[in-house]
Amino acid sequence: MSDKKNIRVTLAYDGTDFFGWQIQRKGRTIQGEIEKALSKMHKTPVAITGAGRTDSGVHARGQVFNFYTHLDIPLDKWKTAMNSVFPKDLRVLKVEEVDSEFHSRYNALSRMYKYYILPNGQVELPFDRSYRWRIFRHLDISRLNEYAERIVGVHDFTSFSNPRDENESKIRYVFQAVFFQEGPYVVFKIEGNAFLWKMVRTIIGTIFMLYENGDHPDKITEILDAKDRSLAGNTAPPTGLFLEQVRYGR
Amino acid sequence: MSDKKNIRVTLAYDGTDFFGWQIQRKGRTIQGEIEKALSKMHKTPVAITGAGRTDSGVHARGQVFNFYTHLDIPLDKWKTAMNSVFPKDLRVLKVEEVDSEFHSRYNALSRMYKYYILPNGQVELPFDRSYRWRIFRHLDISRLNEYAERIVGVHDFTSFSNPRDENESKIRYVFQAVFFQEGPYVVFKIEGNAFLWKMVRTIIGTIFMLYENGDHPDKITEILDAKDRSLAGNTAPPTGLFLEQVRYGR
Repeated sequence: MSDKKNIRVTLAYDGTDFFGWQIQRKGRTIQGEIEKALSKMHKTPVAITGAGRTDSGVHARGQVFNFYTHLDIPLDKWKTAMNSVFPKDLRVLKVEEVDSEFHSRYNALSRMYKYYILPNGQVELPFDRSYRWRIFRHLDISRLNEYAERIVGVHDFTSFSNPRDENESKIRYVFQAVFFQEGPYVVFKIEGNAFLWKMVRTIIGTIFMLYENGDHPDKITEILDAKDRSLAGNTAPPTGLFLEQVRYGR
Repeated sequence: MSDKKNIRVTLAYDGTDFFGWQIQRKGRTIQGEIEKALSKMHKTPVAITGAGRTDSGVHARGQVFNFYTHLDIPLDKWKTAMNSVFPKDLRVLKVEEVDSEFHSRYNALSRMYKYYILPNGQVELPFDRSYRWRIFRHLDISRLNEYAERIVGVHDFTSFSNPRDENESKIRYVFQAVFFQEGPYVVFKIEGNAFLWKMVRTIIGTIFMLYENGDHPDKITEILDAKDRSLAGNTAPPTGLFLEQVRYGR
């Protein structure tokens, strides 16, 4: 690899028309579209590594991937070069050259997601329908935060992960989890070292289940301790979820 | 009609997946989808009248239509009733009962449109790609307004209309036409008594043509006076255009 440059790309995408990040045998995927475009550009197969494998319908304003290139394109031309061959629902925001050891997934210190909810009482317009969860009730943000606080910390998140998740350890460190108002939306912001498959959306679905039942916030801790997915709530829809930022030490 | 109520509806829509407002033999249209849903609801054909016939890809945050109904639905239930049967890219914002003579098109005093432009230097995200015109140059708003000012007033807009427009008179009164900054966008706002087919987008395309050539603002007046469509610029893309508001005296 020493004769190749390692390129780190910060990417935004609209997940609506993708079957998620990861290449599959069938269906349009983000990784698939990018590798196809870069391979054509390089006239040889190019593989990319992404920081997070977002699901079908999930969006990103700060996904990161890296790849190795032998092309002699100046760094300030890469963004335009990629955006001119990528589909319109993928947009490159930033391109950097990084040291040859850099790995988008293994070197990530944290991932930050935001989830957008349009509650009752707000005007429903059609333009954001793929970018939020519409719920037909009013929301008390301080009550929601009583549940969210219990998620923060180092926990075994087995109860909040999909049983098909193949990660050996289900222990993750959630640095922050908080609800706040942003324009017409109630936003849930969560940052952690890493997340299990569907973990963010299951946390949201569970908080809303407990909120609706009027359960005590201790219930979250009970569900965590039980390590049993059947105690958690439904998985919230993907449309509201954005991968906002991936942080690195270098 | 005296036994029927006349219902006025304020409507928002995402024009992306429609072949415009007006019913056609082929293709999904806004009028077509609404009439289909209302006819099913009424178990008899229902025709609607819209205030403006927006083109394919043009959006609305304040389109207005009216129709006559024999259904005995309380006024405060109509919005929910319609939104539950309308497609997700059409959203009812307001429902009112109006006098039996009210006509959405003939009684409209003005239409106000906004056009969204994302100029160079702004971060290009994928989420608004159907809701703005992306142009790769910086914009000087005060210079753009020197052209826009010449549009205001009573003029024959033959040069800014499609030759296939069947309106007998091409004279329209433009009350205001102004560019301003709104977040990352340069917005063009135009209000007039009524507009010819493709008139708003041809005005924008022409202003940008003159702006790019560095032409004197008098050129707009020359083009108006010539009543010749070939002197005007290209029609700007529909994606940036929103029908924002229709005003009525009653």
